[in-house]
Amino acid sequence: MSGTLFVVTAPSGAGKTSLVRALLERMHGLELSISHTTRPPRTGEVHGKDYYFVDETRFHAMASDSEFLEYAQVFGNYYGTSEAWVKQQLARDIDILLEIDWQGAAQVRRLMPAAVGIFILPPSRESLEQRLRKRGKDSEETIRKRLSQARDEMSHYGEADFFIINDDFDQALEELYAVVLSRRVQTAQQSQRHADTIRLLLS
Amino acid sequence: MSGTLFVVTAPSGAGKTSLVRALLERMHGLELSISHTTRPPRTGEVHGKDYYFVDETRFHAMASDSEFLEYAQVFGNYYGTSEAWVKQQLARDIDILLEIDWQGAAQVRRLMPAAVGIFILPPSRESLEQRLRKRGKDSEETIRKRLSQARDEMSHYGEADFFIINDDFDQALEELYAVVLSRRVQTAQQSQRHADTIRLLLS
Repeated sequence: MSGTLFVVTAPSGAGKTSLVRALLERMHGLELSISHTTRPPRTGEVHGKDYYFVDETRFHAMASDSEFLEYAQVFGNYYGTSEAWVKQQLARDIDILLEIDWQGAAQVRRLMPAAVGIFILPPSRESLEQRLRKRGKDSEETIRKRLSQARDEMSHYGEADFFIINDDFDQALEELYAVVLSRRVQTAQQSQRHADTIRLLLS
Repeated sequence: MSGTLFVVTAPSGAGKTSLVRALLERMHGLELSISHTTRPPRTGEVHGKDYYFVDETRFHAMASDSEFLEYAQVFGNYYGTSEAWVKQQLARDIDILLEIDWQGAAQVRRLMPAAVGIFILPPSRESLEQRLRKRGKDSEETIRKRLSQARDEMSHYGEADFFIINDDFDQALEELYAVVLSRRVQTAQQSQRHADTIRLLLS
């Protein structure tokens, strides 16, 4: 198993989704985790590409068999990350990126201590508020609630291995890229990947 | 102390010097370690920039006071890395890069466990031999001796935290850059550097 699981956490409004999208475009061998869900597929969504669509019976069976690294219920639907699926990808030397909140991240870390946690923070409360307001569709009450949730979420920044402040987008992207790339050249990873080269060098 | 000491090790012919030079040009806040030496200054060399030039009495006094992270004798001259100097730079949030052989790296690691070790390897024995021959000034016997020394040196690759195979120069440079940059966004480093931002975010 030479791939790495990267767990990315951020408060709503920190710009995580844009950063992750840009990173996936730039980087080979890094893929987004594909969740299992009980939510019905939307138009265009493909089983095994966007999600693994399963019914509730199957989902609960997987949960009761401890097959999920983490799972949660959102708006009545279940979403979970299959441990076996993640480990299959890592064994194929593919790095997996999982976007998740701090609670899910804590669960994953317990089950896979080698996972790398990355926290994305906004540069200030003001910028967070601006980004949340820019969406323009939320009531003042909703925005207040989201700001409060964001503060709770951010208070867990210290549990991640790395944190990146998304002030300048390009700089933040470069830092995110560096975290993934540097992991690939850690001695443990490289020794597996380049076992033949090393054997020849030292023969 | 939020800077990091990077210890770079490589066999002769792996291309370390070119990589390090390119990295220093590209990266702000990263500087080459300045050694103390008993070697007389060459034309153009500046005390405090290229080296700290000291006499043997002073050098031995520093050594006997355990002021060096590591020191060695090369062609009759002494070279040493002052622990106090390195720690001053790190305290100023400057990353320091030290080029050194595996034995020096081991000494540094014992005294500063937070130092990050990076090993640079050639892609093959053939490429190493080619690079050593290209210099065109060494006898066959010298080249054989260097290849043998290179093999000894390379056998210690596993002691470094990271290793980079210098097959494609640009790729190797990007990996080296990523190792340094990712270290800067580790939670321990960031928490110190952005203490004020964090306090405001969570207030």
